[in-house]
Amino acid sequence: MNDDNLEFPAETFSAVKWNAGMLTLLDQRKLPREINYLDYDSALAVAAAIKDMVVRGAPAIGIAAAYAVVLAARTAWQEAEESWREKIEADIETLAAARPTAVNLHWAIAEMKKVFDSIEGDPEPVLLETAICIHEEDIAANHEMGRLGAELIVANSQVITHCNAGALATGGYGTALGVIRTAFKNGSIKNVFSSETRPWFQGARLTSWELQQDQIPVNLVIDSAIASVMENNKIAWLIVGSDRIAANGDVANKIGTYSHAVSAYYHGVKVMVVAPSSTVDMDIESGVDIPIENRGTEEVTDFKSTRIAPNDIEAINPAFDITPAKLVDVIVTEKGIVHNPDTEKMLALFG
Amino acid sequence: MNDDNLEFPAETFSAVKWNAGMLTLLDQRKLPREINYLDYDSALAVAAAIKDMVVRGAPAIGIAAAYAVVLAARTAWQEAEESWREKIEADIETLAAARPTAVNLHWAIAEMKKVFDSIEGDPEPVLLETAICIHEEDIAANHEMGRLGAELIVANSQVITHCNAGALATGGYGTALGVIRTAFKNGSIKNVFSSETRPWFQGARLTSWELQQDQIPVNLVIDSAIASVMENNKIAWLIVGSDRIAANGDVANKIGTYSHAVSAYYHGVKVMVVAPSSTVDMDIESGVDIPIENRGTEEVTDFKSTRIAPNDIEAINPAFDITPAKLVDVIVTEKGIVHNPDTEKMLALFG
Repeated sequence: MNDDNLEFPAETFSAVKWNAGMLTLLDQRKLPREINYLDYDSALAVAAAIKDMVVRGAPAIGIAAAYAVVLAARTAWQEAEESWREKIEADIETLAAARPTAVNLHWAIAEMKKVFDSIEGDPEPVLLETAICIHEEDIAANHEMGRLGAELIVANSQVITHCNAGALATGGYGTALGVIRTAFKNGSIKNVFSSETRPWFQGARLTSWELQQDQIPVNLVIDSAIASVMENNKIAWLIVGSDRIAANGDVANKIGTYSHAVSAYYHGVKVMVVAPSSTVDMDIESGVDIPIENRGTEEVTDFKSTRIAPNDIEAINPAFDITPAKLVDVIVTEKGIVHNPDTEKMLALFG
Repeated sequence: MNDDNLEFPAETFSAVKWNAGMLTLLDQRKLPREINYLDYDSALAVAAAIKDMVVRGAPAIGIAAAYAVVLAARTAWQEAEESWREKIEADIETLAAARPTAVNLHWAIAEMKKVFDSIEGDPEPVLLETAICIHEEDIAANHEMGRLGAELIVANSQVITHCNAGALATGGYGTALGVIRTAFKNGSIKNVFSSETRPWFQGARLTSWELQQDQIPVNLVIDSAIASVMENNKIAWLIVGSDRIAANGDVANKIGTYSHAVSAYYHGVKVMVVAPSSTVDMDIESGVDIPIENRGTEEVTDFKSTRIAPNDIEAINPAFDITPAKLVDVIVTEKGIVHNPDTEKMLALFG
């Protein structure tokens, strides 16, 4: 396929779409070289797509899972109208287990299950309406976070972002990139450093591309150069998304976020975490209890089909790390902002 | 070629050899997938090989340049016996400009030029003897630094190293890896984390391979996971090489070293810089005056012939960064150790 399939500007990109009774995902493994959409008509296939990172980004995973519940319910209803609620459980368990760290996946499934009891007859219309609502509310939340976060940034700032927390990672517009988009429009941000985000290159492949499409000045840089960028440039903020925020304000996000946050602390750069309230998990006391996904080491040792490292090398590939609340200056959600987060302040907004 | 061309253990690997009147370089761009030696009979070709990173690592670059001066002198002598000292100058200037950050290149050329005046007749025998002496002294220095550095490490330590400061980066045995080799042999080190070192993957391709060959336990990890590794493991030391050390103890080394040193400071991990005294540049007051090479951005945007990033993206690719002396616990040289380096202590040892 070609670019005709993408809407511009990039802030309106949609990685997740419901189309003709199926879920359509933009294959993020191929971006930006190939614009390729894949269609899904079963929840198990969506679970595999989440695991394989066809779709990634905590909010986008949640939305894809919501639509997958619609697919699961359709199949269950077709198989046994009376017992679709029982039939669907195995699919939902597989979906929920697709990736462990992003809590939005569990949140979205729980939102979908809330309406199960009220459904009479074919569940698909009601569940689809619920999924579309989750999707639309995510986009609205991103715009609201964009507004709130951008207000914290002074004119002509330079900022750093890590991984991709953009339109592609969400229902649209983005969390961290939502703030950056809004702040660029109002003149608060003049330049963005995008760290490439090994091993999956979300910064190089996705964030740089989104910002380039929207004509927001962006400099791509390897992850380990971020400390040097902070030392040699006036950087106002490190702005990132999150996959799960604990009750004390500890933040799980893409591996490297913690490294960047430590550098930010050392250089007096402020740290802004932007995430919808669905990312906040008040059942988890602190970051040490957040499950961290360890992915296959071939993501580190190989580039596509080319081996980089020697054979049989030991490698570790944690997909996320924990940035402690003490390194976070603000958490921006659509419900409001938490400055210098701690359990008390988190409870006040999310309790 | 195959592995028969490499001597084992890896501590005896030689990336630079004088063989049958030519300079032979192990092509480090192809490692560890291909063991390929390239022969050079002209100084300009060696300068190109240094620029293109056929040979890399500050001490190895210096040694290669010393042998290149032999080649340059041979050509100049063949062209005009009486004026070889003048004829050689253009080649030497090209050699010296091949890479700007590593001072060992300039040091080695200066060492070679010191004997020019004393030469009568054909310069090749005397210059070759001098180059071999530089090479052998580098290996001896590495063993001495290995001994000195290993004494600082308590039993069963885990350490982190960045880039490759091993046999491949030097005349043999290595600087940072020399310390690690000696400390592993005497039981001080039980495990090494090797950060992959984007964009050129020296950690993945070279360091992991050297350590694996010598059966030293190694875990390969992406650069941005190092802060997380420090948080989640008991790490005693970050051990790195250097391309130039200023008079105040500021250290230029592979991009990412500064990032790791900031993380080390935050986590209470000690930082050891291991480099021969030829790396110390007492003419440079502090790190801000060390020239930092910016390499082509295709090293960041592409992997071999595969484009990673979108077309026409702005990228920056500094090959080195500066770790300030205040983040360095010890500088280990063959002349001795400088603890908590500053100008006064550096002058005492290198003045």
